[in-house]
Amino acid sequence: DAYKLLVLAGDGIGPEVMREVARIVHWMSAHCGLKLDITEELVGAASLAVHGVPIRDEVIELARQSDAVLFGSVGDPAWSHVGFDKRPEVAILKLRKELELFANLRPAKLFDALIDASALKPEVVRGLDLMIVRETVGGIYFGEPRGIETLPDGSRRGINTEVYTTSEIERVARVAFDLARKRDNRVCSVEKCNVMESGLLWKEVVTDVHKREYPDVQLSHMLADNCAMQLVRDPNQFDVIVTGNLFGDILSDLASMLTGSLGMLPSATLGPVRADGKRNALYEPIHGSAPDIAGKGIANPLAQILSFAMLLRYSLNRAEDADLIETAVSNVLASGLRTGDIMSPGMARVGTEMMGQAVLRE
Amino acid sequence: DAYKLLVLAGDGIGPEVMREVARIVHWMSAHCGLKLDITEELVGAASLAVHGVPIRDEVIELARQSDAVLFGSVGDPAWSHVGFDKRPEVAILKLRKELELFANLRPAKLFDALIDASALKPEVVRGLDLMIVRETVGGIYFGEPRGIETLPDGSRRGINTEVYTTSEIERVARVAFDLARKRDNRVCSVEKCNVMESGLLWKEVVTDVHKREYPDVQLSHMLADNCAMQLVRDPNQFDVIVTGNLFGDILSDLASMLTGSLGMLPSATLGPVRADGKRNALYEPIHGSAPDIAGKGIANPLAQILSFAMLLRYSLNRAEDADLIETAVSNVLASGLRTGDIMSPGMARVGTEMMGQAVLRE
Ligand SMILES: CC(C)[C@H](C(=O)O)[C@@H](O)C(=O)O
Ligand SMILES: CC(C)[C@H](C(=O)O)[C@@H](O)C(=O)O
Repeated sequence: DAYKLLVLAGDGIGPEVMREVARIVHWMSAHCGLKLDITEELVGAASLAVHGVPIRDEVIELARQSDAVLFGSVGDPAWSHVGFDKRPEVAILKLRKELELFANLRPAKLFDALIDASALKPEVVRGLDLMIVRETVGGIYFGEPRGIETLPDGSRRGINTEVYTTSEIERVARVAFDLARKRDNRVCSVEKCNVMESGLLWKEVVTDVHKREYPDVQLSHMLADNCAMQLVRDPNQFDVIVTGNLFGDILSDLASMLTGSLGMLPSATLGPVRADGKRNALYEPIHGSAPDIAGKGIANPLAQILSFAMLLRYSLNRAEDADLIETAVSNVLASGLRTGDIMSPGMARVGTEMMGQAVLRE
Repeated sequence: DAYKLLVLAGDGIGPEVMREVARIVHWMSAHCGLKLDITEELVGAASLAVHGVPIRDEVIELARQSDAVLFGSVGDPAWSHVGFDKRPEVAILKLRKELELFANLRPAKLFDALIDASALKPEVVRGLDLMIVRETVGGIYFGEPRGIETLPDGSRRGINTEVYTTSEIERVARVAFDLARKRDNRVCSVEKCNVMESGLLWKEVVTDVHKREYPDVQLSHMLADNCAMQLVRDPNQFDVIVTGNLFGDILSDLASMLTGSLGMLPSATLGPVRADGKRNALYEPIHGSAPDIAGKGIANPLAQILSFAMLLRYSLNRAEDADLIETAVSNVLASGLRTGDIMSPGMARVGTEMMGQAVLRE
């Protein structure tokens, strides 16, 4: 029977890059025996425009009952003045929270063909292949109290609270250690324990989990400010980095940019194992909704396409189909096609649709 | 009459790099009519070892009554297990808080002679000269409630609170706008307003101050995750960046590392203008206490020396003496001397003391 897939293209460049995935799904359904029961829904600014909310409760329910969610991007700044609960971003934050998608896996992998697109020197970035595991349902993104209060004298105070509990730290640490075992067996845990007690607890709990359950994995600790520096100085020193929500947001974007191919990188966000043995999971590109180039047909669809490949591999257990897509993407790059974001001299510049069709042809 | 200078070398490489400043002070006292009334005190691990606390109240009082504080570095990890209030870092955090040193100015400037030491491609980093203004007495570093609590079931929760008030944001924004007017007249304000209300207030208040008092300066806004990426992709797009305590910690370290010469960069942290018309001010290198190389005589003393030059310029109004030191440093670099951190092929590797003496000779 068919896998239930929920497609949420979102706003900005989301819908146009998702269109290229749709072509591939269509082709795979015809040629690879892929059976998907697909539902599409509006989220982000697209949902705000029609339904007045960034995501409807029905959509969250649909997501919960799906085998996987393929997400585009949200963040149209046109809504930013309307109110804090009308941010398009609420869509992704609610999905993460409601489905308990606590472990965001963000690979920062250099595509050899794209080494020239990196701002880093080739000798610094060559061979880069690290994975950031970011906690995504806790920390300062969700802690209470939060808000803006007006004081008696008319001035205001903005408040947010970072909270991490033992069990929140343990479960994301386990995801990182498990991943490391399939990679180079090294985990670097990142916090700011010299200033924040939540970071101190983070470090202690990761250390405990390591000692009890993963003594075979190599564990190190690093302060977040130092980690930002080390990522630039020598990113190849890392294998798996595990960190909280806010540091993970910044450090994973930084790490992706090192590869020079932000528009190429997919991510997966996993929930706990459910009663039926499956995990809720959401797949999305690392890039945002890029409102500045939305609608121009020039966005790079490869991160969205590779997110779909990750979905095939991890949620649907279709490694062969995933390989097929990933090989097609490398072949297209090797053939010299480039969207604007990864353009370099001597290559052929193409738009979203031509890039998508080239992958399909491969 | 003599200026009152408090020298706090701290731990790690602090004392050894400070020694090279002492030689310069000695020489300037003899040859440039510099009159300094110098007090030296222990802070960080050095104070913990002798007095059992990272900084004594008397030392904070001394700092308050000084014309300027020259700080080395603190952070010996040997104390990290002893307790959260015995961190060597408490010394710098208390000084900032008690003297209300709210605006940390961190230049990220490329020394042309060191362009090869950067991990970034020369064409990306050439000419880099940006200034990060980081708020240093508010935000999550100091907000209450904070701590680690044990729950009834034995599990624990780590908590920290980010708080920013209108007036805290206004005063640091003014420092940034004032600086921009003397530079390229552009300020980029960085927060995470799509997720945090404290960031939303930050953005609103900076926008208000701009409209009311600095309409002539160009103002833009950027999310912290995007800023980390843009710093790597194209750091030359920035002039002055203004941001909160935690983002400032990460982004300023990142920006310094881009120059490839972290060991070269000084910083100043300024308090409000006092009744006597002066400002409390603390000068310190951007680098940390580097415990891994402490005591080996190989640390780069140039950031500490340049911090002293900044002190001469901003707190003591001795621009000529500051110029003298800065020119000496460039000449030494041009002559090919390098400590290990900025070493490149064909240059002459020297230790802390030889580097210090070379500056003195110039
Ligand atoms: C859209 C935004 C809320 C989100 C975040 O900050 O988590 C994004 O930056 C990300 O990293 O997925
Ligand atoms: C030593 C530490 C408390 C400090 C900070 O985080 O502020 C340091 O990293 C800095 O940036 O000055």
